[in-house]
Amino acid sequence: MKSFLLIGQSNMAGRGFTHEIPSIYNERIMMLRNGRWQMMTEPIHFDRPIAGVGLSASFAEAWCSDHEGEKIGLIPCAEGGSSIDEWSIDGTLFRHAINEAKFAMEDSELAGVLWHQGESDSHDGKHKVYREKISRIFDEIRRALSAPSIPFIIGALGDYLGKVAFGAGCIEYKLINEELQKYAMDNKNCYYVTAEGLTANPDGIHHDAMSQRIFGIRYYEAYLKNKHIYEPLPNEKELVERCHNRVNTLTEKRYMALEKFTLGEITYEELMKTFS
Amino acid sequence: MKSFLLIGQSNMAGRGFTHEIPSIYNERIMMLRNGRWQMMTEPIHFDRPIAGVGLSASFAEAWCSDHEGEKIGLIPCAEGGSSIDEWSIDGTLFRHAINEAKFAMEDSELAGVLWHQGESDSHDGKHKVYREKISRIFDEIRRALSAPSIPFIIGALGDYLGKVAFGAGCIEYKLINEELQKYAMDNKNCYYVTAEGLTANPDGIHHDAMSQRIFGIRYYEAYLKNKHIYEPLPNEKELVERCHNRVNTLTEKRYMALEKFTLGEITYEELMKTFS
Repeated sequence: MKSFLLIGQSNMAGRGFTHEIPSIYNERIMMLRNGRWQMMTEPIHFDRPIAGVGLSASFAEAWCSDHEGEKIGLIPCAEGGSSIDEWSIDGTLFRHAINEAKFAMEDSELAGVLWHQGESDSHDGKHKVYREKISRIFDEIRRALSAPSIPFIIGALGDYLGKVAFGAGCIEYKLINEELQKYAMDNKNCYYVTAEGLTANPDGIHHDAMSQRIFGIRYYEAYLKNKHIYEPLPNEKELVERCHNRVNTLTEKRYMALEKFTLGEITYEELMKTFS
Repeated sequence: MKSFLLIGQSNMAGRGFTHEIPSIYNERIMMLRNGRWQMMTEPIHFDRPIAGVGLSASFAEAWCSDHEGEKIGLIPCAEGGSSIDEWSIDGTLFRHAINEAKFAMEDSELAGVLWHQGESDSHDGKHKVYREKISRIFDEIRRALSAPSIPFIIGALGDYLGKVAFGAGCIEYKLINEELQKYAMDNKNCYYVTAEGLTANPDGIHHDAMSQRIFGIRYYEAYLKNKHIYEPLPNEKELVERCHNRVNTLTEKRYMALEKFTLGEITYEELMKTFS
């Protein structure tokens, strides 16, 4: 199985509202819990009680449609609100993420890192030292996980920032995006992904659910083609629709019925029908 | 800060329905996420998407009312459906839990272990080797965490088992309870807690939300008094009511408002009123 490490802040963890779009259930997409793999359900992250739809679900779903019969594992380690300094290599978040990745790598091959961070550094000139800091972090991830050439996919911050509510303070987000882009252009196996056209929740700082789906599709395109994605993909909405419209397998339907029964939403008799 | 390691299977993780009872918000109760502490919200565990109310919230709330001005940290490591063999000391769950506890212990003092497990071993004579197995696991926890004399609080399996739905197969749960009780009686700093009178969700295997609240109160009584709890406490329902009726602090109210705003349930103006 191939696995991907998910790190950064809240827009990697995901805050898209689950009620706005269909959930993805795919028995070939796994997520790490307690050091072990289980079938993915959304939210994938659990950094906050408000965790919701993130970009890795549509990334993984797109990966699956290109890798018939294979499985993919997601390692959720993003932390809402975390600044680049909180990801320093001696810090808790970094060390914990490395630990989680090592558990994952006991029975999977780490195939990439999905990174999204920078809102917390979009003010007070922090962009001036941002590139140097991510460079140190990414180098150490490669070293600590003995994965010198895995790709890092690096998404831009949303153009909705710097305007309202919790996003209002992120006035230097364009400068962070420049640093992310420069870093990706200057370093092998690093790919930049535009956030052009993505929209926010009412909080003005979190990608909404559909934007996360689209972003995941762009991240996957960067991964698949080994290239920077500077513009929205012409067919990205179709690709999201494909994620939402895949017909679930019997295993997936049974999983969903089990969830509903355990939550008291259907009777034991209704559950048993799924298994008969 | 004092911290407690939560291990076992689903009834430690918690499957009580959150809509059945008021949630506990207490700025002095923390939970571990990504190796760091944050204010507790329920569900505390994230082992499954169906995680709900567990026993540790009322345990911690009761602890707080006896420890004015102090904080308590919860380390959620239980895994739904896990058998005693899956907790063997070389296994992933064990090693992951030790890792999590070590992150917690970087800035807290481990003060105890709350254990609830055994449903998955309540059949086919597995009780015959159960005591020997928990003994090895508990000894190794004490050794690995350099905590030779911390208390282990060990709850019994529910008397609703062996009857319906997912609980129907747990026909030897009384034999497991005998082993848990014998172990606790024979070992220093281990306390047994009865599950008498606790009731289940419709799935026949998971304590319902109110039962988890009561169980947490009993666990705390065992911890506080250093004794086995063989019978329901005469005032346990009052103590649960006290958990539910504590008046929230301004910090807690603001936290709840932030959650609601981020989830799109109140406007920015309504949120700002909480902060004015």
